[in-house]
Amino acid sequence: MSLLGKQVKDVGEQGLLNIVKSFCPAEIIGDDAAVLGVAEGHSLVITTDVLVDGVHFSDVTTSSEDVGWRAVAANLSDLAAMGATPLGITVGLALPAEVQVNWVRGLYQGMRDCLQQYQTVILGGDVCRSSVVTVSITALGQVLPQRVIRRGAAQKGDAIVVTGYHGCSRAGLELLLHPEKGEHLPIDAVKRLIQAHQRPLPRLDVLELLWEFSGPTPVAGMDSSDGLADAIVQICRFSGVGARLASEKIPLSPDLKLLGSFEEMLEWVLYGGEDFELVLCLPYELALPLVKQLGKGAAIIGEIIEEKKIELVDSRGVYPTRLLSLSEGFQHF
Amino acid sequence: MSLLGKQVKDVGEQGLLNIVKSFCPAEIIGDDAAVLGVAEGHSLVITTDVLVDGVHFSDVTTSSEDVGWRAVAANLSDLAAMGATPLGITVGLALPAEVQVNWVRGLYQGMRDCLQQYQTVILGGDVCRSSVVTVSITALGQVLPQRVIRRGAAQKGDAIVVTGYHGCSRAGLELLLHPEKGEHLPIDAVKRLIQAHQRPLPRLDVLELLWEFSGPTPVAGMDSSDGLADAIVQICRFSGVGARLASEKIPLSPDLKLLGSFEEMLEWVLYGGEDFELVLCLPYELALPLVKQLGKGAAIIGEIIEEKKIELVDSRGVYPTRLLSLSEGFQHF
Repeated sequence: MSLLGKQVKDVGEQGLLNIVKSFCPAEIIGDDAAVLGVAEGHSLVITTDVLVDGVHFSDVTTSSEDVGWRAVAANLSDLAAMGATPLGITVGLALPAEVQVNWVRGLYQGMRDCLQQYQTVILGGDVCRSSVVTVSITALGQVLPQRVIRRGAAQKGDAIVVTGYHGCSRAGLELLLHPEKGEHLPIDAVKRLIQAHQRPLPRLDVLELLWEFSGPTPVAGMDSSDGLADAIVQICRFSGVGARLASEKIPLSPDLKLLGSFEEMLEWVLYGGEDFELVLCLPYELALPLVKQLGKGAAIIGEIIEEKKIELVDSRGVYPTRLLSLSEGFQHF
Repeated sequence: MSLLGKQVKDVGEQGLLNIVKSFCPAEIIGDDAAVLGVAEGHSLVITTDVLVDGVHFSDVTTSSEDVGWRAVAANLSDLAAMGATPLGITVGLALPAEVQVNWVRGLYQGMRDCLQQYQTVILGGDVCRSSVVTVSITALGQVLPQRVIRRGAAQKGDAIVVTGYHGCSRAGLELLLHPEKGEHLPIDAVKRLIQAHQRPLPRLDVLELLWEFSGPTPVAGMDSSDGLADAIVQICRFSGVGARLASEKIPLSPDLKLLGSFEEMLEWVLYGGEDFELVLCLPYELALPLVKQLGKGAAIIGEIIEEKKIELVDSRGVYPTRLLSLSEGFQHF
């Protein structure tokens, strides 16, 4: 961080709170808590994420605006994964007194920029002192109880739908860390891949369309924040089923194709993470028109099978795949 | 922390999540977010707090059970301060891999013990790695819109009610830091004061009684987590009014009387903080029966005045008081 400009200790807690408040709607701040309506008949959906400097973000690849955007995107994606539309977020920020005030301003600016894409707001929060910057976000959403998307509801025969391309966020990170790898690519492709990493768009836009096609049929699924493979493993595990994926059905973004063959990109597509697409399981007859409407990047990539195993097959047979080795999820410690 | 026993890195993220899950109701975990009902016609109330090791708690005075209890108590108190009954909390925990697993278990045990006093639960959360233990809690509650207690709603002539004694938590902290100061006190008194510090009870129990007496009359107020003086300053500032407090009306706990005279204890009573009582402003005719019902420690300590100043008076006249100097609140940086 630059040594120029004011630090948090120069403006004090009240100064910091004034900055935070300037990013919140005026009518909901000032009391011990925020007050908010929930639409009649709707259930409340709540999700919490904690991001730590040096663990989840770093100054090398991420401006504070991007930290804010990505933190919000991850939480809104969790809401989308449940079928919920956002009501707002709360932000708990712990930080050293030496952090630049402009860094904090950028963080809230990035959060607000992302929230505004989805017509939602910062509802309140807390700021306090710490030795390491920690951003804790709780997102609130609402959903009609019959429309909750659960990872444990996949059924044999369901089509497995992805709402968009995978691997782009991981590729964008690679290009930020090793810019030379993008030198032979068109500048627009580089920009799009970096954008996919820095400014991911959670797929709340899918929900309206999904309900239009699914009607009263329950839909299973989750988001692919920890990777496409992880999403499929989690869905299978919670639903007590298996999955057969057809490798040639997994869509590869035109930008990724410039970086390598499908087989070279498969690692990022399956395990890259942070694409924030949705992985949905629903009957074929509903999945087909949904995918058609969703357009490019969306596809039926396989189907749910009874046997509790996950296969990745191509026209030549069964791939060797690490899918199942992930069944315990990622280990962050 | 002891070097005995397992550390977080020994059980990994999945092991840690399994511990966390064992403290959550089984039916609400496993998906990307928790789903929950809100009673019809009710507004949602949300509050967030971040606690950092070395800033908000320390191993010297606080076991992890107490850290958990106090963190939950502070959040439930914020709900009570808004007139809301709890729906549950989410917990974001960031911690070094070297933390003892038993410390984590104690933290969640303490949280659950406090939640159970109020028939509420942990709804979910997140765990991640960090260089410093950070506990971020978001509490959710519900309230009928006409029953929201706001700090900006105090009116000239309102009685100022405290729901219990102040200063006990600060006295308990003193006895933990300097046990010799309690040597001349009855052991029960020492225990009660330490309990007031380690296991504070947010006053959600006051709400039913309050509604019984207040009926449709709006009530102003907040909790006294940052001290009685701070609560009065905030209420006056947000309501655009002043307050006249009668020093002889401020109740002094029998245990505090053993530690010193009223004048000696006044600093702790006004500025000690963390008693988690409510400070309420409502018409005298409603305040009188409420205080009577609340019983010991509850009192009308003064009244709201038009002039924007805060006076502390005794029978001899106006006290010298630091009350107004607090008008910018506490500075944590």
